[in-house]
Amino acid sequence: MEGRTGTNLPRIADFNQAVILNAVRHAPDGLSRVELAELTGLSAQSVSNITRRLLDRELITEAGTRVPAGRGKPRTLLRLHPTGHFAIGVHIDPTVTTVALLDLVGDVVASVRTLPASATSPPQLVAAITEAADGLIASTGVDAGRVLGLGIAAPGPFDPGTGVVLEPPLLPEWTRVGLRELLHDATGYPVVLHKDAAAAALAELWRGPRGSAAAFADFVFLYLGTGLGAGLVIGGELLGGSTNNAGEIGHLMVAADGPRCSCGRRGCVGAACMPRNLVAEAADAGLLPSPAPGAGDREIDKLFTALCRLATGAGAARRILEESALRLARGAATVSNLLDVRAVVFGGPIWDRISAVFLPIVRDTLLTTTEARYVHRVTALGSSLGADVGAIGAGCLVLEHAFSTRPSTLLLGSHTGTAEHRAPTAG
Amino acid sequence: MEGRTGTNLPRIADFNQAVILNAVRHAPDGLSRVELAELTGLSAQSVSNITRRLLDRELITEAGTRVPAGRGKPRTLLRLHPTGHFAIGVHIDPTVTTVALLDLVGDVVASVRTLPASATSPPQLVAAITEAADGLIASTGVDAGRVLGLGIAAPGPFDPGTGVVLEPPLLPEWTRVGLRELLHDATGYPVVLHKDAAAAALAELWRGPRGSAAAFADFVFLYLGTGLGAGLVIGGELLGGSTNNAGEIGHLMVAADGPRCSCGRRGCVGAACMPRNLVAEAADAGLLPSPAPGAGDREIDKLFTALCRLATGAGAARRILEESALRLARGAATVSNLLDVRAVVFGGPIWDRISAVFLPIVRDTLLTTTEARYVHRVTALGSSLGADVGAIGAGCLVLEHAFSTRPSTLLLGSHTGTAEHRAPTAG
Repeated sequence: MEGRTGTNLPRIADFNQAVILNAVRHAPDGLSRVELAELTGLSAQSVSNITRRLLDRELITEAGTRVPAGRGKPRTLLRLHPTGHFAIGVHIDPTVTTVALLDLVGDVVASVRTLPASATSPPQLVAAITEAADGLIASTGVDAGRVLGLGIAAPGPFDPGTGVVLEPPLLPEWTRVGLRELLHDATGYPVVLHKDAAAAALAELWRGPRGSAAAFADFVFLYLGTGLGAGLVIGGELLGGSTNNAGEIGHLMVAADGPRCSCGRRGCVGAACMPRNLVAEAADAGLLPSPAPGAGDREIDKLFTALCRLATGAGAARRILEESALRLARGAATVSNLLDVRAVVFGGPIWDRISAVFLPIVRDTLLTTTEARYVHRVTALGSSLGADVGAIGAGCLVLEHAFSTRPSTLLLGSHTGTAEHRAPTAG
Repeated sequence: MEGRTGTNLPRIADFNQAVILNAVRHAPDGLSRVELAELTGLSAQSVSNITRRLLDRELITEAGTRVPAGRGKPRTLLRLHPTGHFAIGVHIDPTVTTVALLDLVGDVVASVRTLPASATSPPQLVAAITEAADGLIASTGVDAGRVLGLGIAAPGPFDPGTGVVLEPPLLPEWTRVGLRELLHDATGYPVVLHKDAAAAALAELWRGPRGSAAAFADFVFLYLGTGLGAGLVIGGELLGGSTNNAGEIGHLMVAADGPRCSCGRRGCVGAACMPRNLVAEAADAGLLPSPAPGAGDREIDKLFTALCRLATGAGAARRILEESALRLARGAATVSNLLDVRAVVFGGPIWDRISAVFLPIVRDTLLTTTEARYVHRVTALGSSLGADVGAIGAGCLVLEHAFSTRPSTLLLGSHTGTAEHRAPTAG
C-alpha cells in the first residue's frame, strides 16, 4: 500500500509492456491488437507502439488471424513467441537434481537428471548443473544469448538478500551455502532462487491446463518429496511472505501421536508424510526389509516405492498410507481455513506413487471439514505436471521475473537477462 | 495477475487520486505538492489538479508549511482532512457490541457500547446499533451527509456476495442472518462487513502508532475474544482469501490433549484459549465457583476476569493461563512459519486481562522456534488499540474502501457514500 506510485513514472513504458505481455500470456488462443486495447484499456496507438517493440524483441509473434464477431476483416493475432527466449529451471531435491530448458511459454524443450544434492558437495553439484545446462543448450541448438536466466527450486530456508541456503533440515551439508552466487559465477546467467514448493505452485499457475489449479486464483500447492512444503497462491500471485520463506508447513501439528519429528515433537504433518518414516513403520510391521542404519535418501526412496506397490492391496501397507493421508488431509484443511483458498494441489517427487490412496482421502476431508464449506467447496487436485514440476517451476521463476513489473531482490545478475552470458561449452 | 489493466483507462484519474490520498494518509506530518510529485512520480500539473479536487471534496486540507531542505520559500503542507468525512464502526461480539464514530484519519470521535449479540435477536440488535449510531452523530454534531458508510466487524463466516452471516460457531441464533442488508435498510448508509480479526488487523495497519505492528508490512493479528480468529496482513494489505473468510484458525491443532472443541476433537488452539474452557478448568480445580449450567457469555466473562485476577500470583490459576499461552504460542509460530510474517499482534476483548501472563510466553516462542529465525526475528506485540480495536477496525473498513482503487464486493449501497443517507433522528 505504502510506496505505491502514480502512473506517469519513467518506467510507465515497462509497466504497460508488462501489461500487454501478461494479457498475451493469458490468452493461449492469441489476441488481436483491438482485443488488447479493449482488455487493457490502453489506447490503440499505445498498443501499436508497444506490440511493435515486443515483436522486435521477439517476446511476441504474429500467428494466425481471427474474424471479429462474424464480420469485418480478419485481425492478426499476437501470441508469446515460444522460441524467442528461454529459461533454465533447476530443481534440487535430496534424491534427484533435474535441469530443464523451458521456452517462453513454459513448455519443456528438453530436460535431464543429474546427481542428487544429498550425494554431492555443493561445488560438485554446481559443476554438474552447469554441465547439464550447457549440454541441454548445445544439444537443442538454442542460442545461449536467448536464455533469460536460470531458476533454482530447492528446499529452504534461504536468505533472499544473498541467495544463501540457510539450515535446510534435510540437506545438512548445504548449510549456509551461497548457491545463487555459485551458480551465477559458474554459468554466467542471472540466477533466481525460490523454495521448491513455491516454484511448484508457480508452475501450476503458469503451465497448468485449463480446469486445473491455474483456474483457481487462490490455491495451496502441497509439495511432497523428501520433506513437505507449501506453495501459496493468493489472488493469482505467489505469496512469498516477508523474505520469500513462506510455506513452511512441516511442523504443523495434525495428530496426537506419530513418528518423532526433527523438532523433537510428535504429530507434525511433515513427519507424518515423510517417506523415511513410512518406510520405517512398514519395516517395523514386517512388511519391508529394514533399511540399513544411516540409509541414504535414495535407498529410502526405493523402499518407499516398494511400500507404495504393496499398498495397492487392502492390507497393512495400505493402512499405513491411509493414516498418512488422513494426517496430510487435516493439514490441508487447516491451511485452507487459514487462507480461504479454493483448491489444494498435491504434487512433488512422491505424489505419483501415493495419489491413488491419498487423493480420495484428502478430497473427502476438504469437502466435508473446511470452515468455508458453507460458502464454497475446496477442491483437491493432483498436479498435472508430474515429477518435473519443481524444475518447470524453477524455469517459471525466471519467466515470472521477466514478465513482472515488480522489483525483485531475488535475481542475481542482469535483470534484462542479456548481459554477460557465457557461451555454452561444447555439448 | 490476470485482468490487470493498463494505465490510460477512464478510471486513471481515480487511480491517481487514490495514489495521492494514500501518500498523504501515510505521512501524518503532511506533504507538500512538490514532495507528492516526487513520491508518486506524478507530474506537478497532475498533482496540482488532483489535490485541488481532493481539497474541494474535503478529503485533504492545507495545514502548516515546511521550508524545503534549509532554503527556498516555505511550502504548504497537505494532510488528510480529519473532519471532512467520517465512518461508523460496529463491532459485534457475543459479550458486547461497540459502535464508534471515526474521523477520516481513523481517530475515534466518540463511541458507545450497547446490547451484546448473544443477548438479542438480530432485529433487536439492528435497532440498537441504529439508535447508537444516530445518537453518536447527533451528540457530536457531525453532518450525517459526511459519513462515508458503516462497517461491521463480526465473527464469520460470511457470504461476501450477500453479506449474510453463515454459521457462526459462537452465535447460533445468528445463522443465515442478512446482517449487511438489515443494517443498510435500517441506517441508509453503505455497509461493509468483515470478520472481527480481519478488522482488528486493519485497525493496526491504519491506526497503530509508529513502532507498532503498522511498521511491519507482514503481520498476523490474533484476535482473542469469545473465540479466536486471525487477521492476516501481507505486503501491507489485508489478505481476505477467495471469499474474505481467511483467518479461520480455531481448529489449528496445538496439543495432544485439551478441552473438547466444537469440532469434536481435542487440542484445537481455539478451545485452548477460550475463556469458557479456562473458567471450567479453574472451577474443576476449585479455584472459582462453577458457572451455572448453560451460563451465558457475560457470566463466563465475569468469571474469566476473576480467574485473570487470581493469575497475578504464582499458583494454579497462573499455570492454567500459562498452559493456554504456550498453546497459543505454538499456533502463532505455526502461522508465522506458513506466512513468513515479521510480527504477531495479539489483541481483542480478553487480551488486556491476559497480556501480562501471555506476552512473555508467546514472545519467547516466536523468537526461538520459528523457521525464519535464521533470517529474521518474529516479534510478538500487544495491540495498542485496546478493547475497541474491533470497532476501530470496522470503521477502518469503510475508510479502506473509500481510499482503495480496487473494486470490492463487500459494500452494500452507494460506493461514493454520498447518496441516500437517512437524516439522523434526534439524539
